[in-house]
Amino acid sequence: MAKQKKSPRPKAEAPKGFRDYFGAEVTERAEMLQKIAGVYHRYGFDALESSAVETVEALGKYLPDVDRPNAGIFAWQEADDEKWLALRYDLTAPLARVYAEHRNDLPTPYRRYAMGPVWRNEKPGPGRYRQFYQCDADTVGAASVAADAEICSMLSDTLEEVGIPRGDYIIRVNNRKVLNGVLEEMGVTDEVQAADVLRTIDKFDKVGEEGVRQLLGKGRLDASGAYIDGVGLDEAQAEPVIAFLTAKGATNADTLPKLMAAVGESAIGAEGVGELQEIASLLEAQGYGEDRIVIDPSVVRGLGYYTGPVFEAELTFEILDEKGRKRQFGSVAGGGRYDDLVKRFTGQAVPATGVSIGVDRLLAALREKGRIQSHATGPVVVTVMDRDRMADYQAMVAELRNAGIRAEVYLGNPKNFGNQLKYADKRQSPVAVIEGGDEKANGVVQIKDLVLGAQIAENATLEEWKERPSQFEVPRADLVAKVREILEGQKDG
Amino acid sequence: MAKQKKSPRPKAEAPKGFRDYFGAEVTERAEMLQKIAGVYHRYGFDALESSAVETVEALGKYLPDVDRPNAGIFAWQEADDEKWLALRYDLTAPLARVYAEHRNDLPTPYRRYAMGPVWRNEKPGPGRYRQFYQCDADTVGAASVAADAEICSMLSDTLEEVGIPRGDYIIRVNNRKVLNGVLEEMGVTDEVQAADVLRTIDKFDKVGEEGVRQLLGKGRLDASGAYIDGVGLDEAQAEPVIAFLTAKGATNADTLPKLMAAVGESAIGAEGVGELQEIASLLEAQGYGEDRIVIDPSVVRGLGYYTGPVFEAELTFEILDEKGRKRQFGSVAGGGRYDDLVKRFTGQAVPATGVSIGVDRLLAALREKGRIQSHATGPVVVTVMDRDRMADYQAMVAELRNAGIRAEVYLGNPKNFGNQLKYADKRQSPVAVIEGGDEKANGVVQIKDLVLGAQIAENATLEEWKERPSQFEVPRADLVAKVREILEGQKDG
Repeated sequence: MAKQKKSPRPKAEAPKGFRDYFGAEVTERAEMLQKIAGVYHRYGFDALESSAVETVEALGKYLPDVDRPNAGIFAWQEADDEKWLALRYDLTAPLARVYAEHRNDLPTPYRRYAMGPVWRNEKPGPGRYRQFYQCDADTVGAASVAADAEICSMLSDTLEEVGIPRGDYIIRVNNRKVLNGVLEEMGVTDEVQAADVLRTIDKFDKVGEEGVRQLLGKGRLDASGAYIDGVGLDEAQAEPVIAFLTAKGATNADTLPKLMAAVGESAIGAEGVGELQEIASLLEAQGYGEDRIVIDPSVVRGLGYYTGPVFEAELTFEILDEKGRKRQFGSVAGGGRYDDLVKRFTGQAVPATGVSIGVDRLLAALREKGRIQSHATGPVVVTVMDRDRMADYQAMVAELRNAGIRAEVYLGNPKNFGNQLKYADKRQSPVAVIEGGDEKANGVVQIKDLVLGAQIAENATLEEWKERPSQFEVPRADLVAKVREILEGQKDG
Repeated sequence: MAKQKKSPRPKAEAPKGFRDYFGAEVTERAEMLQKIAGVYHRYGFDALESSAVETVEALGKYLPDVDRPNAGIFAWQEADDEKWLALRYDLTAPLARVYAEHRNDLPTPYRRYAMGPVWRNEKPGPGRYRQFYQCDADTVGAASVAADAEICSMLSDTLEEVGIPRGDYIIRVNNRKVLNGVLEEMGVTDEVQAADVLRTIDKFDKVGEEGVRQLLGKGRLDASGAYIDGVGLDEAQAEPVIAFLTAKGATNADTLPKLMAAVGESAIGAEGVGELQEIASLLEAQGYGEDRIVIDPSVVRGLGYYTGPVFEAELTFEILDEKGRKRQFGSVAGGGRYDDLVKRFTGQAVPATGVSIGVDRLLAALREKGRIQSHATGPVVVTVMDRDRMADYQAMVAELRNAGIRAEVYLGNPKNFGNQLKYADKRQSPVAVIEGGDEKANGVVQIKDLVLGAQIAENATLEEWKERPSQFEVPRADLVAKVREILEGQKDG
């Protein structure tokens, strides 16, 4: 018989665009999500965890992000009935399916929150992964803009709850209906032309007022020297768009009349401005001032996707970008009203509004602000001086754990004591415990303050070193008390 | 132009074998996992969240569950490099990949826990889904059985922490090496025959001692009347297996010598018994008695997969099965030592041991024992009597929430007040708040105790009803205080 060829070893690597999260990366995210869930719960929202897998048919095409028109999904075909299944690419499409499927059992309105990974089959880039977390809250079945106002106030409470101080964020509110009114006022009725105008508006952030004027008209030479064709409107036609985009005044009371002017005679436009007015007064009645939530027609992200009010939460403190320039941290959450969510399943229009928090960006912001105290302290390490006395060492960690102290025995090969201390270092252990034969005979243990030890090793003078010893010999019975004392000292220090 | 045919509406349903989890189903699981993570953390284990997607090459074939030899995975091919990717089917195969990939950055030993969904592409059945949660803890790089003992004590602490009282569970420990010694003693050296013996042992639970004897010999007529061929050993050869399976005595001190006898002259067998002895004394030294963790050679699940000690946690209280018969709740966690986890990636054998908790089964057990107080209280519902005063109602819920009380305004169409109360009922609201025009004028609100109201409606006499009103009129300023008082009364009641 021919000798069987051995298959080569598999490569130990995560698939391209996927990554693993270790220790504090996992627990810090979990803690943040738990705080968010607490706020959502207080607002009456219920948890929903839908399956990660959906039929491709049910997913449809709902991706709100116009920047990624080619965004794909991970899909495969079932062996038996040849149905195509796929990983969810957001939490909104599954909500539509769940609501349509269970609508007879769910309350109306249905307030739900969901948090979990979603998957996008697209080209990965730096900091851009094909699996990432989303955290959404939506109200399905409520036509009233009170539902939109509620989403805004909840978002404000959420940001403060996780640790973004008031003044460091602003939630901006716009309305797609106002834009529809502007389009009506401009006389743009053709859908293709309307879409062109929307695409242009989407560039307002980058090209500013003059750039938008050019792009609505004949066109514009962009920074790279390429000529971008314009939409071809005449100058007068462009005016309402500019009026809309620049309507933001010092206060909502300034902004709203300007918006009313921009929509002219349009009924849908007036309705949109009225909604913004109502949202503003509902929020004011609850004490959410314009320092937290403000009407701002220059918010254009999502206007192409949503059908009514649109929200965006921005963090306003400055950070340094990769080139060392100051810039605002920027957007961490967005949402709006989308009234045709469930219609493709049932034929019935069901009003819905909601928000999605960019989990990774918000976490990054909290780290930036020092709001996450990485209390990622390692465990107390009980070293093994005598491998036959493992039971003694295990008894020590059991005592420490029963006192609520994170602790472990060194479980590697104990022969080389240096390796044990290196291990403690790698684990960022605050304290090491040592009990050799002499200590055992004398009924004592050695307790090493590793944090203080490291500080002393770095910069203490001999006097300080003598004054503040980092290793203590205590009676075995005092093990837990002494370790706790050292841990508390480290917390204060 | 021909009229375009409309595509039919998509079906609103989760894919076959997948399901959605609502409200308390989600939060109760999250709370249980959080408690488990707390224990793991205290034992020095670090969180790991690996990507849900792996290369098929990295996943390999590690499925421990011999009941499902055809278990499949959900896989698809990348468009560009044609690599096959798949959803993870457990948390152990990804651990092997992660450890092999990051071993230079990870401490040795590496203690990690992981919790999250896994996916199996298999035929769904009642209560058997294609996506479910696992919760694992493993120590990689520790050859010492102290690591196995630690897993057992941690499992014991975990069960008690989530709410399984001592006495209601038992953790049984066996060792594959002892079985290897038995096989040696029997003179079974052929791998195929060894596998046959293992398969037979696996039926010990069902067919008992006599059944195993028959199956090791000529064969056996099973309950359905079919004849099952035996392994073909002679009677004397079968003796060590029977001695092994029935070696359990009243205490570990009784069991261990019987095991030693069963392995006869086998060196590997003696090593296995020695390991069990060491585990038993380590646990005893830490105070984990045989009422919690016990040596039990009749535990055969996993013996085919693991290479050393094997553990299984069983809940010993009785429940009624679907036919109304009493039976023990059974297994909720299992694990063991598998020393070749990383070898297929690196060529180096790395010792590892760990445990996996069946999240759904443990949750079911806690519900069975009434250990999960579904404090799934709905929100206080502020009803809308006058839609123009939405701001007033929003202000009320803001006050309630600021006092930490879950509360919401009714956001559906407020026209029909009956619908609002039906909604409150569906939400399991404890309290409804009503402020009509008269109340507003008088500076009061009506507060309805819905729990008491339901009780009274069900079974109170007229006298009781008069004595214990379920609706209160209080000054608007006392809203929060009165609602809190009612909620606290409901908790005590």
